[in-house]
Amino acid sequence: MPVGTVASVKGVSQDILEELGVQILLGNTYHLYLRPGVGQVRQLGGLHRFMAWPRAILTDSGGFQVFSLNELRKVTEEGVTFRSHLDGSAHFFSPESAMEAQIGLGADIMMAFDECTEFPADRERARQSMELTLGWAARSKKYFEAHKREVPWATDHIAPGVPTWAGERNLAGGGDDHKIAGQNLAELRSAGQVRTPAPTQTQALFGIVQGGMDPALRRESAERTVEIGFPGYAIGGLSVGEPRAVTREMVEATLPHLPADKPRYLMGVGTPEEIAEYANAGIDMMDCVLPTRAARHGLLFTSQGRLSIKQARFASDQGPLDSNCGCRVCRRYSRAYLRHLYAANEVLAQVLNTVHNLSFYLDTMRSVRHSIALGNRAQLLSGEQSGVKP
Amino acid sequence: MPVGTVASVKGVSQDILEELGVQILLGNTYHLYLRPGVGQVRQLGGLHRFMAWPRAILTDSGGFQVFSLNELRKVTEEGVTFRSHLDGSAHFFSPESAMEAQIGLGADIMMAFDECTEFPADRERARQSMELTLGWAARSKKYFEAHKREVPWATDHIAPGVPTWAGERNLAGGGDDHKIAGQNLAELRSAGQVRTPAPTQTQALFGIVQGGMDPALRRESAERTVEIGFPGYAIGGLSVGEPRAVTREMVEATLPHLPADKPRYLMGVGTPEEIAEYANAGIDMMDCVLPTRAARHGLLFTSQGRLSIKQARFASDQGPLDSNCGCRVCRRYSRAYLRHLYAANEVLAQVLNTVHNLSFYLDTMRSVRHSIALGNRAQLLSGEQSGVKP
Repeated sequence: MPVGTVASVKGVSQDILEELGVQILLGNTYHLYLRPGVGQVRQLGGLHRFMAWPRAILTDSGGFQVFSLNELRKVTEEGVTFRSHLDGSAHFFSPESAMEAQIGLGADIMMAFDECTEFPADRERARQSMELTLGWAARSKKYFEAHKREVPWATDHIAPGVPTWAGERNLAGGGDDHKIAGQNLAELRSAGQVRTPAPTQTQALFGIVQGGMDPALRRESAERTVEIGFPGYAIGGLSVGEPRAVTREMVEATLPHLPADKPRYLMGVGTPEEIAEYANAGIDMMDCVLPTRAARHGLLFTSQGRLSIKQARFASDQGPLDSNCGCRVCRRYSRAYLRHLYAANEVLAQVLNTVHNLSFYLDTMRSVRHSIALGNRAQLLSGEQSGVKP
Repeated sequence: MPVGTVASVKGVSQDILEELGVQILLGNTYHLYLRPGVGQVRQLGGLHRFMAWPRAILTDSGGFQVFSLNELRKVTEEGVTFRSHLDGSAHFFSPESAMEAQIGLGADIMMAFDECTEFPADRERARQSMELTLGWAARSKKYFEAHKREVPWATDHIAPGVPTWAGERNLAGGGDDHKIAGQNLAELRSAGQVRTPAPTQTQALFGIVQGGMDPALRRESAERTVEIGFPGYAIGGLSVGEPRAVTREMVEATLPHLPADKPRYLMGVGTPEEIAEYANAGIDMMDCVLPTRAARHGLLFTSQGRLSIKQARFASDQGPLDSNCGCRVCRRYSRAYLRHLYAANEVLAQVLNTVHNLSFYLDTMRSVRHSIALGNRAQLLSGEQSGVKP
């Protein structure tokens, strides 16, 4: 899931994302809450409509950035007080307000409000943090269940004029002649600009497993989160500075305790090698700023390994960036040109580098899906031959 | 002609430029000379190949930026000494070296080395500057005629090993098995990566008319430049701070003295209204940083006039940027989203804004061509009807 922080995967337009085969992207609730604001996005019909992205979106709860971007913060059982990194204004996030914000944004998948346990943390601290997250998970689910129909694209029949959120009229209420910012809902629908989900369709709220770097706590957190019950589960609190081997250990400690028939999402991971490894291990979804952020620093992933395009040795290299890559960048431009763009600080460097890195990541996942499918097919065939059900 | 300063129209990839219908773009010799360097571009096969642009390119001579970007410079009849704005290193441009640089870059059209007369300038100064430009025009043409076959994509048969420029082997010499940076010329040709012009095909060197803001000098400069003889002519030294009415006056004073059957290029102009006006008056080509630079500042041209997308009033505007525009930006994104991107300082703001502004400029020119064609057709029809040849 490419990270589209403030409703944009930096430098890459939505049609290029579609062409790359991006199926779902991530929006950061913390950033969108600050700018342009949840109310604004809600009023404009939700995040999909706002950014003209008809495919899937997942929003995080805001919890991580509240911790990572803010030194001055105060955590209580109630929630977290913090200051905007933009202008220093004071804000407060709780499980309830984080749910309200994400419902207003209207992503397909939203995340429970959790505490990303800092690293390192001793067992006592990791347990305390885990307990807080579990309490917050229950509150997240409770608020969500009570308010999930308030999503901007819901088509439930709610009487017009009944305020549902911050005094706003439910956008879908009132039938087809109800106006959204001056435009008739029926017109918008026929223009394909309104998603018309079934009345029972709502967002999916995923729970998040914490527990620090303690396998027993991880297991407990997983079991107790499953007990609360969510349609999908994430493993949070990793890639926070721990050694890679520990990350792997925690994933292995957690996975067996998450239902195999529900999506399993490893947050904030990773390199191309890691995403392939974890996907093969049973992880279904991952997000990471690495492909996009590295691209902006000229660090490009290729089938022959990473390279730093700024290096002088590429200045005369007429070959493609990656001869095994079929993306638009590799089919058209030379390394010499890409190197020049980066050295000249051209915006096109960021655009092309990002397009390639995303293509590389998505290709990697396609390969994993393909080999999983081949493995399944082989298994199926062998089962049929021996008369044993797979 | 969109300006692709250092081999890139800022933020917009070449495939999007093609889709927009860009037929020719401009490269700045001054910038390319400094970075990545003419030798580098030559070695990589010329500017088209370097930036993967198979359509037309025009390079300016470097004269303008030498003046506009450098306060400390020394002009003599020989040429101009100046310092790089990048690192302060000292350089020298003369008609000969400016031709050598442009031949090395290999654009389809290149410009004579001229002095862009400062504004304001009294008659004496304008005459002196004009005389310098005329002398330089003759020297430009002389050097060009002697060295035009040294263009990187020439297919003349020059014996391999004979140094032609800065000791470099002529890339085309030696036949198909001659290597260009390790790749066989025949391989490159069959991959469609080498332009194979006829042996007589070379670049076109255009002359430039100066004369300050004096109609008589402008006329004299035009006549004497035509006397030297070029396949096309530009009107330079305008849009340097003079009132618009004076620009128009100078164009009107010059046009009648430039051959109507050769391209007439007005440099550095203008707004959408101006480019339509001058195109209708007989100008064939124009370049201006306005569409791209304004875009980066959120200033967008629409069929209803200019707007500044950063304004708060657009924050809730769900409509397209320009309802009369068919570009990818207007067909997909709302003003609210574009405004958000700009306010959030997102790179995508620059990309989308530039795509729209370029589309608007190119649409404007398409309309002018269409009405000219209609006018011609009407004239033709009326001529046929009355038996008078048009």
